[in-house]
Amino acid sequence: MRPMLNARAFTIDADAAARGAAQRRAAREGFAGATCGTEALDLVQANLVVLPAADAHDFLLFCQRNPRPCPLLAVAEAGAFNVPALGAGIDLRTDLPRYRVWRRGELADEPADVRALWRDDLVSFVIGCSFSFEWALLAEGIPLRHVAQGRNVSMYRTSLPTEPAGRFAGPLVVTMRPLKAADAIRAVQITSRFPAVHGAPVHLGDPKLIGIHDLARPDYGDAVDVMPDEIPVFWACGVTPQAALEVARPALCITHAPGSMLVTDLRNHQLATL
Amino acid sequence: MRPMLNARAFTIDADAAARGAAQRRAAREGFAGATCGTEALDLVQANLVVLPAADAHDFLLFCQRNPRPCPLLAVAEAGAFNVPALGAGIDLRTDLPRYRVWRRGELADEPADVRALWRDDLVSFVIGCSFSFEWALLAEGIPLRHVAQGRNVSMYRTSLPTEPAGRFAGPLVVTMRPLKAADAIRAVQITSRFPAVHGAPVHLGDPKLIGIHDLARPDYGDAVDVMPDEIPVFWACGVTPQAALEVARPALCITHAPGSMLVTDLRNHQLATL
Repeated sequence: MRPMLNARAFTIDADAAARGAAQRRAAREGFAGATCGTEALDLVQANLVVLPAADAHDFLLFCQRNPRPCPLLAVAEAGAFNVPALGAGIDLRTDLPRYRVWRRGELADEPADVRALWRDDLVSFVIGCSFSFEWALLAEGIPLRHVAQGRNVSMYRTSLPTEPAGRFAGPLVVTMRPLKAADAIRAVQITSRFPAVHGAPVHLGDPKLIGIHDLARPDYGDAVDVMPDEIPVFWACGVTPQAALEVARPALCITHAPGSMLVTDLRNHQLATL
Repeated sequence: MRPMLNARAFTIDADAAARGAAQRRAAREGFAGATCGTEALDLVQANLVVLPAADAHDFLLFCQRNPRPCPLLAVAEAGAFNVPALGAGIDLRTDLPRYRVWRRGELADEPADVRALWRDDLVSFVIGCSFSFEWALLAEGIPLRHVAQGRNVSMYRTSLPTEPAGRFAGPLVVTMRPLKAADAIRAVQITSRFPAVHGAPVHLGDPKLIGIHDLARPDYGDAVDVMPDEIPVFWACGVTPQAALEVARPALCITHAPGSMLVTDLRNHQLATL
């Protein structure tokens, strides 16, 4: 039985498995681009955080306490680099287009492969990503400005603290998508069905109420236009764990590089809880 | 920010806090009965599992991999016996009416207080309980046979395995409630809103399909009547972690005694995700 986000175990169909495997093979063989530009947008893509076992319990606790920004899809055994629940043959050391290596919280390298760094005590955390709920929003006809403008989504550090765990702490980071009111209401409904990929918004309306003073100056990603008849809608963001890693400063941490995700064999719709 | 099961942090109101505190004070002062018989049924009641830090990472992982039977409401820091997110002044060592102490998987004692056993390395896991979704079902007029008959709910070990983590493994244990078809459909909708307390059913209909051969002989709890126009509906059950603890056989484990739960200051409706 796979993690039962809904009543069904995740079953992987042959078409999804073949396309997921093809994406990972491309990354293994040198593709270093953004996975959101691939043909795999109906497949679940995921953030990666790899930590020494000494830090793993506290980080797991951080994710448990902050499920909106850190929705865990899978946690591997210490030393393991496969995650069979998410796809046969996944090798977390090679199958992402690009990685980031952090030492004591500082970016040290951005390699295409982390086999040389692998150790028996490394624990891999695979974390859900907003690409999945964006797929669901687009599939229901909700237009997304940053997609239309060909930009990265706008991300902001908020004044909302996460619930700390050990040395892991820091602000909640959010993404913002401007929507017309009717679309904002529908987006609440749609994303509520996807708690494994950040779920419902954490805020909408006045950005100042969560400590964001200028929407035109995001902390990460690109600014997008907000029209007069639109309301900004904010979701918890997978950059939150990266902000916590900067605070915790573990001796070693390996993550995906921005936009360079793990492509799994699951389909986005399988993550819906209802 | 509290664990964000929904967009709002859990805020605790004064009435709930006073009544939760009164229940816990009663337990501290000698009440050793079943918490489901109290006036606190609109408050969230919870299962307790306390383990040495050496076992805590694997058990946390077990809960992460099996969120339906093991929905974590809170995990305390090592040594801590308070959980402020669930209520001010909670003392996990004294505030449950009765505890069970397990040594190497065998029941060793059933004390009313575990202060003498407390150690700096003990990690407390507070796990959601089906009382919360039963409250939601009853509030919407879904009749529950075991409540009407004044019995314990029927529980069964299934042929569905949990996803193991370290030494923690074992079968999924389920509760069963017989419902008319229209009520079963509504119950799926209602309990889907409560993933923090087992969520949607894991099965309905033929018990044999999940390895249950005689509904009249539950593995735990009492048998209840199933009428000809009713369908049995099965939910993941909080006894599942106890079955996993019997497999893992940790040196020490402290749990609540059956029916003798932690009464928190949260209201059940606060656990609804939508």
